[in-house]
Amino acid sequence: MSSILSSAPRVVNLGLESFTESVTRNGGDALHLDWKPPGDADPALAWQLAGLMGDADDPQSAGARIDRANAVACERIIAARPLLVDVALRADNIWPEMKTGRLLLHAGAPVEWRDMCGPMRGAMTGAAMYEGWADTPQAATALLERGEIGFAQCHDFKAVGPMSGIISASMPLFVVRNATHGNLAYTNLNEGIGKCLRFGANSPDVLARLKWFEQVLAPTLKAATLAQCERDGNGVDLKSIQAQALLMGDEVHSRNAAATALYFMQMATALSRTAVPQAHVRESLEFLSRNSQFFLNLSMAACKAIMDAAHGIECSSVVTATARNGTTTAIRVSGLGNAWFEAPSAMPAGLYFPGFRAQDANPDLGDSAITETAGYGGLSIAASPALTLLVGGSVADANAYSRLMYEITTTKNPALSLPNLEFDGAPTGMDIRKIVDSGILPVVTTGIAHKEAGIGQIGAGIVRPPMACYVKAVKALAAKLGVSAG
Amino acid sequence: MSSILSSAPRVVNLGLESFTESVTRNGGDALHLDWKPPGDADPALAWQLAGLMGDADDPQSAGARIDRANAVACERIIAARPLLVDVALRADNIWPEMKTGRLLLHAGAPVEWRDMCGPMRGAMTGAAMYEGWADTPQAATALLERGEIGFAQCHDFKAVGPMSGIISASMPLFVVRNATHGNLAYTNLNEGIGKCLRFGANSPDVLARLKWFEQVLAPTLKAATLAQCERDGNGVDLKSIQAQALLMGDEVHSRNAAATALYFMQMATALSRTAVPQAHVRESLEFLSRNSQFFLNLSMAACKAIMDAAHGIECSSVVTATARNGTTTAIRVSGLGNAWFEAPSAMPAGLYFPGFRAQDANPDLGDSAITETAGYGGLSIAASPALTLLVGGSVADANAYSRLMYEITTTKNPALSLPNLEFDGAPTGMDIRKIVDSGILPVVTTGIAHKEAGIGQIGAGIVRPPMACYVKAVKALAAKLGVSAG
Repeated sequence: MSSILSSAPRVVNLGLESFTESVTRNGGDALHLDWKPPGDADPALAWQLAGLMGDADDPQSAGARIDRANAVACERIIAARPLLVDVALRADNIWPEMKTGRLLLHAGAPVEWRDMCGPMRGAMTGAAMYEGWADTPQAATALLERGEIGFAQCHDFKAVGPMSGIISASMPLFVVRNATHGNLAYTNLNEGIGKCLRFGANSPDVLARLKWFEQVLAPTLKAATLAQCERDGNGVDLKSIQAQALLMGDEVHSRNAAATALYFMQMATALSRTAVPQAHVRESLEFLSRNSQFFLNLSMAACKAIMDAAHGIECSSVVTATARNGTTTAIRVSGLGNAWFEAPSAMPAGLYFPGFRAQDANPDLGDSAITETAGYGGLSIAASPALTLLVGGSVADANAYSRLMYEITTTKNPALSLPNLEFDGAPTGMDIRKIVDSGILPVVTTGIAHKEAGIGQIGAGIVRPPMACYVKAVKALAAKLGVSAG
Repeated sequence: MSSILSSAPRVVNLGLESFTESVTRNGGDALHLDWKPPGDADPALAWQLAGLMGDADDPQSAGARIDRANAVACERIIAARPLLVDVALRADNIWPEMKTGRLLLHAGAPVEWRDMCGPMRGAMTGAAMYEGWADTPQAATALLERGEIGFAQCHDFKAVGPMSGIISASMPLFVVRNATHGNLAYTNLNEGIGKCLRFGANSPDVLARLKWFEQVLAPTLKAATLAQCERDGNGVDLKSIQAQALLMGDEVHSRNAAATALYFMQMATALSRTAVPQAHVRESLEFLSRNSQFFLNLSMAACKAIMDAAHGIECSSVVTATARNGTTTAIRVSGLGNAWFEAPSAMPAGLYFPGFRAQDANPDLGDSAITETAGYGGLSIAASPALTLLVGGSVADANAYSRLMYEITTTKNPALSLPNLEFDGAPTGMDIRKIVDSGILPVVTTGIAHKEAGIGQIGAGIVRPPMACYVKAVKALAAKLGVSAG
């Protein structure tokens, strides 16, 4: 280290990092401060943010109104009790509009065919063949290009789907009920890893597995779920499984090994009280026992049921959905209706399976970031040291990430303990104001899809949603509450 | 804080802690150093220890011979591969001596009826009734008092049992085979918590559950185990389950929630390939799914199979068994044959279930410390933050305990990763020399039994085996190797 009397320059640098480099290259000591002015370096936004951040002395201030609304939103998040109550054997039993027209649901905000990423196009193509609308990928693609198949967002159908998140008429769905607030949520069945429709694969074996879901797995799990409901009057308590899994090395987004095992125990036990044919029991249990991410979709639907209950609180700045269609990342905010605040998706940073590299990756994709929105996943990554083996980084990094998330959230969820933070509650209720003010983006754990359709998952990592989503939402909230830009 | 110029005394104290107190009571600053001279403060022992600790320059020195032997013992521990290969429907099918006479196996080193603790007496009484040797507890106790029932240690029958560890002729046994070294190990089936024979309960419901084990649970698990063997040629890979469970919040001694779920997944899946009656499947799965400690006995038998393979290495100072009969704690050492080195059992320190307190506790009891001997349990407590909820202390304490265990072990087991120590291998191969030299006792996680028979588990905690066990073993090793006391 250079002494305090040395003639070499000793510099603290703010702003352009290259200036730090030029000092150190010339033998100087330079510390680069990773700091930006509040409001994403936009003075008008900084004024709006100041107006939204609250004035404790004035209960009528925008800030105080937002704080009260956020407290209500978080109470609802904490009180929500998502239960798996049924398996619908076909999506069009739930949504009649799927019977009358050709409609595919997808992850994220609305996106046109021409803007869709490779995996989503591949999944749409596969779903069209699976539904019998076309016999070949070429014919299916032609239908899609001509606009003969309608698209809609899962989120607007109270549904969520991982990766491309495609849901079509014949697909079975898990039905989740929030026992506290009465709302329902839906999701499809997890296909495992490797070649799967959700990653854009659409080969015959992928479609055959979806048919087996219809004919074997879904009826089997439906019987088990109903047997469980009959036994305890509730169904499968998904939040209880999530909370236990946080003590067992899962963050219930990118790692669900314990949650899947706990779900398996309930289902296998319930199945022994049903008349499901033994061959179906065998095939179903073998499938579940080989797929440690099976619980992911259930975790997502539980989070959707939780976060929908916290949506629509007047003035609240709590994020209630984070969704990626593979092209854009979009958020919804409790007090801002159904508007999506959207920006181009970022690239995940992580570890790749052998034979793949960063250039192969698709931008961030899927509805699964609903789990972070509810306080799990990247927000609770301290719960999952084992996940660092998959996504990279150290256990100390994981603990630091979760601690950082308290800076941008409203409260701690007392029902969700993070062992490595000495059982502190999971960071809960992301506040768009705190994100923009601090410059700290949420941490999202995620699978990485190949950018070409059909190859599947090629890695796993961490992604931070784009700051522009939160900036747009803050501006919208300021406009709505009449907070001026200075 | 007192300044360096203050007139109050500033003292560093060694030895009697009460002297520290008298300094601080009189306004002085005193630091009590928790230090004892090596060799447990016994100069003769210190000389022996110095002779045993090794002289790297002399490959014929006692220390170098011990080091080489310990390396072999640890290679065997690491290479061992315990598989669950069968369930024996009756213990006397394995041990014919149980057919010809009345014999009960128990945990720990040999102990006479008059010296037995309450829970072990209660369990012996219950086993005598269960076997039909007596109709009432009074009649059973009379038989036991008159010496009409023989006792032997589980360990001498290649078996281990938790708490009182009673095994009688009609009890079913898990059969574990170490695929690497060919040796077998046995254990009984876990009864759950609360009123259990192993805690000394012997009421009709306790005995009825043991009958149900014979008639339903054991045949069901036998069929599942054999179906698993048929499928993969191996059976249930217990070490693989243990290693996964260390990533999932278990230390596979006092917490087995993940391990039990992983075992359950294999058994339920295998059962779907058998002709076991559905009623038996249902009863068995319901029992397993309610008992998160079911895997404990399997973990113990896996460890017994591992450690027996490391026993009998000439000159080795590695501990190969730690066993408590509720009166004494005893260890065996690889290079010291079948001698037990024994001292009165310590009291566990931990948390009590509501309504119980430390005065109700029995001294440390059971063969389950075989798990620590193999590197799990207290040695790997860093793997189980959730266990601190049950036994007390902080997650930081748990991490520190495991780190401390590297001081008294020979190596790290690369197959057993501890996430919170950034995936370092579990401390493996406790060395009696290092324990006595450092004064650091192994950490054992343990259930706490009520001292009266029949009440059951009243808490859980941590216990350190008595130093005298290790001192006696060091003296025996010095004598055997001709290392003099100065």
